[in-house]
Amino acid sequence: MRILVLGGDGYLGWPQAMYLSARGHDVALIDNFSRRLWDAECGTDSLTPIASADARVRAWKEVTGRTVDLRVGDIADYEFLSQLFKDAPPDAVVHFGEQRCAPYSMISRHHAVLTQTNNVVGTLNVLYAMAEFAPGCHLVKLGTMGEYGTPNIDIEEGFIEIHHNGRIDLLPFPKQPGTFSHLSKVHDSHNIMFACRVWGLRSTDLNQGVVYGVTTDETALDPRLATRFDYDGIWGTVLNRFCVQAIAGHPLTVYGKGGQTRGFLDIRDTMQCVELAIQNPPKAGEYRVFNQVTEQFSVIELAQLVRTVGARKGMHVEIANPANPRVELESHYYNAKHTKLTALGLKPHLLSDVLLNSVVDTVKQYQHRLRPDTILPFVNWRTTRNPLGYHDIKPGGSPAPKA
Amino acid sequence: MRILVLGGDGYLGWPQAMYLSARGHDVALIDNFSRRLWDAECGTDSLTPIASADARVRAWKEVTGRTVDLRVGDIADYEFLSQLFKDAPPDAVVHFGEQRCAPYSMISRHHAVLTQTNNVVGTLNVLYAMAEFAPGCHLVKLGTMGEYGTPNIDIEEGFIEIHHNGRIDLLPFPKQPGTFSHLSKVHDSHNIMFACRVWGLRSTDLNQGVVYGVTTDETALDPRLATRFDYDGIWGTVLNRFCVQAIAGHPLTVYGKGGQTRGFLDIRDTMQCVELAIQNPPKAGEYRVFNQVTEQFSVIELAQLVRTVGARKGMHVEIANPANPRVELESHYYNAKHTKLTALGLKPHLLSDVLLNSVVDTVKQYQHRLRPDTILPFVNWRTTRNPLGYHDIKPGGSPAPKA
Repeated sequence: MRILVLGGDGYLGWPQAMYLSARGHDVALIDNFSRRLWDAECGTDSLTPIASADARVRAWKEVTGRTVDLRVGDIADYEFLSQLFKDAPPDAVVHFGEQRCAPYSMISRHHAVLTQTNNVVGTLNVLYAMAEFAPGCHLVKLGTMGEYGTPNIDIEEGFIEIHHNGRIDLLPFPKQPGTFSHLSKVHDSHNIMFACRVWGLRSTDLNQGVVYGVTTDETALDPRLATRFDYDGIWGTVLNRFCVQAIAGHPLTVYGKGGQTRGFLDIRDTMQCVELAIQNPPKAGEYRVFNQVTEQFSVIELAQLVRTVGARKGMHVEIANPANPRVELESHYYNAKHTKLTALGLKPHLLSDVLLNSVVDTVKQYQHRLRPDTILPFVNWRTTRNPLGYHDIKPGGSPAPKA
Repeated sequence: MRILVLGGDGYLGWPQAMYLSARGHDVALIDNFSRRLWDAECGTDSLTPIASADARVRAWKEVTGRTVDLRVGDIADYEFLSQLFKDAPPDAVVHFGEQRCAPYSMISRHHAVLTQTNNVVGTLNVLYAMAEFAPGCHLVKLGTMGEYGTPNIDIEEGFIEIHHNGRIDLLPFPKQPGTFSHLSKVHDSHNIMFACRVWGLRSTDLNQGVVYGVTTDETALDPRLATRFDYDGIWGTVLNRFCVQAIAGHPLTVYGKGGQTRGFLDIRDTMQCVELAIQNPPKAGEYRVFNQVTEQFSVIELAQLVRTVGARKGMHVEIANPANPRVELESHYYNAKHTKLTALGLKPHLLSDVLLNSVVDTVKQYQHRLRPDTILPFVNWRTTRNPLGYHDIKPGGSPAPKA
């Protein structure tokens, strides 16, 4: 199949592009390198050294003999995007090409507007390009479990049958996202569902949980094929950050009570899930949602797990409970259904000591690249103008969130 | 109270600004005249002659002695918007300042993107300006009943109690909007709900039905105070269009079967509802939704009503059923609750022969201004590139929608 991987230079986009290329697909990698720009803006950096997109693609060719077609540009630019579709109409589009970071979207008005316009316009453009130049193409869109928030009922996969005043309907699951980034993906979901309805497009919306891990079969082939590993207070996801904090001898920062429960998955399962979606496309006009998670944990459970693994390696890991810079429930019901990908054949890699050991070993290997002053959270949801970048952080602590 | 009326030069914004000014409020009218620009773009025009915003405000002063503060600018420009808040922090913001037209948003990709970025960015800016400069201010946001679509259960006011697998939660009512314009207002609703939660703002989201009528106590004071009356295939709402078609001797265009049922209200009730919301603000941090409708009708019921009134005036009114250029159910369940505004004291003007007579009389008065070639629908939901403007319409009919 001809597959466009939008955002193919990112944490998941790059390994996904290789994963699909390794399986014989004709892969084009699309990116405008905004993620690298935003690192420069925030004073953050991947713990693992990452090659340029060009060097990555050349190394992939050298190591495997396979070609990935690198196209540099912005999907919010329709002239660029539509030309890609006209040049070689894709069979599938895997859409990682969004500003995906919750804290980044909460820095200031500028960052909220950038996140929502970038994501909404990019996705609208993809929908129009499909309708105009590749109407049979399958859009595999990366959304987030954060679209649902934390309702006090079971979270279904995209739709819920509601019984009300003696009548019944199957309706979109109500959304309660908790950042401007998550909100942008709710906007996308509504736009995509509509485009499928009016233009007969087909799409799978993958509401992905929090991804952990850094190694796939393909990234392990050569150091130039490594993907990024974010641990900082803006871009880092929780389990990665905890591993770094353990190695650096910092306390694990569990915001507030740590009862925040979320769905998680291994980076290798992201690869699998996207491929399963591509192999089993929806029918024309169908918009479907898969909850792309394999397990759920509370934040305090993850911290305790890292402490246990650390102790076995002779590390003394402390847990701190700073005031929560986010606005979220710290203890709540959480039960997210995730059977649709399993039914398609997903074989999950469940979180285990083995995985944690391998992440901890990666962190140790690159410990010299650590920027300790970027680890703590420095975006407070309650403030409309957060200091931007690690330069503004006072030594000795994060800016105290207002209660 | 100091009240900003965003979009105060529009069909509803202008009479609303006068209505609030007449009741002693300190009203500022904000507009960038984009509605007038879009008329120029589409080759459409108000049936009633309307004065410039400047002439309107001067006439209002001359007739009533009252001052409305006209501020010309774009709320998507934060430098402009925030200065308004700094100059005189408002107690309430009435937000009509969006691209509100469903067919306009469906003309092409350009129009969809314009509609969503204009509306989402404008509203994000209003939320940030409130949080930064007027945190106690009450946002009264005009949304639309179209956010709900046509679910097979009763439509509640913004939130629904869902019983699921033995658990209960009160959750946002699921949204199924049917155009990129309606979608933009769903995006706004999610953004506003979130801003109330994280920043403690207060907002009333008025999910308004289809408004009919052209005359309020204030517009009737002087011809220079008239508001616009849209009847064309892009901007015209259904009942206004039917009255024009009856007078012009054209068949009333009932799309498809005409079973499409929607909530409606008189323009004078919009004035009342907004004032009731302002007089009864939500508490800090509260996001509430009112369904701003007074009655519901199917499209065929409205056509029959116009035919009856026409017959009494000696007109022979025909009803035509062209193929539906929209993608919507043509017969469906519809029952929208609307008790919250009634509970606050709304005294509705129900649709009657008297109102219809007055609209028909207005149309007769300005019949010489009618542009007959703009009446038929010329935007087809199923096409991503509609011919723009009445110039592209072939004589003798509308572009045939593809089935």
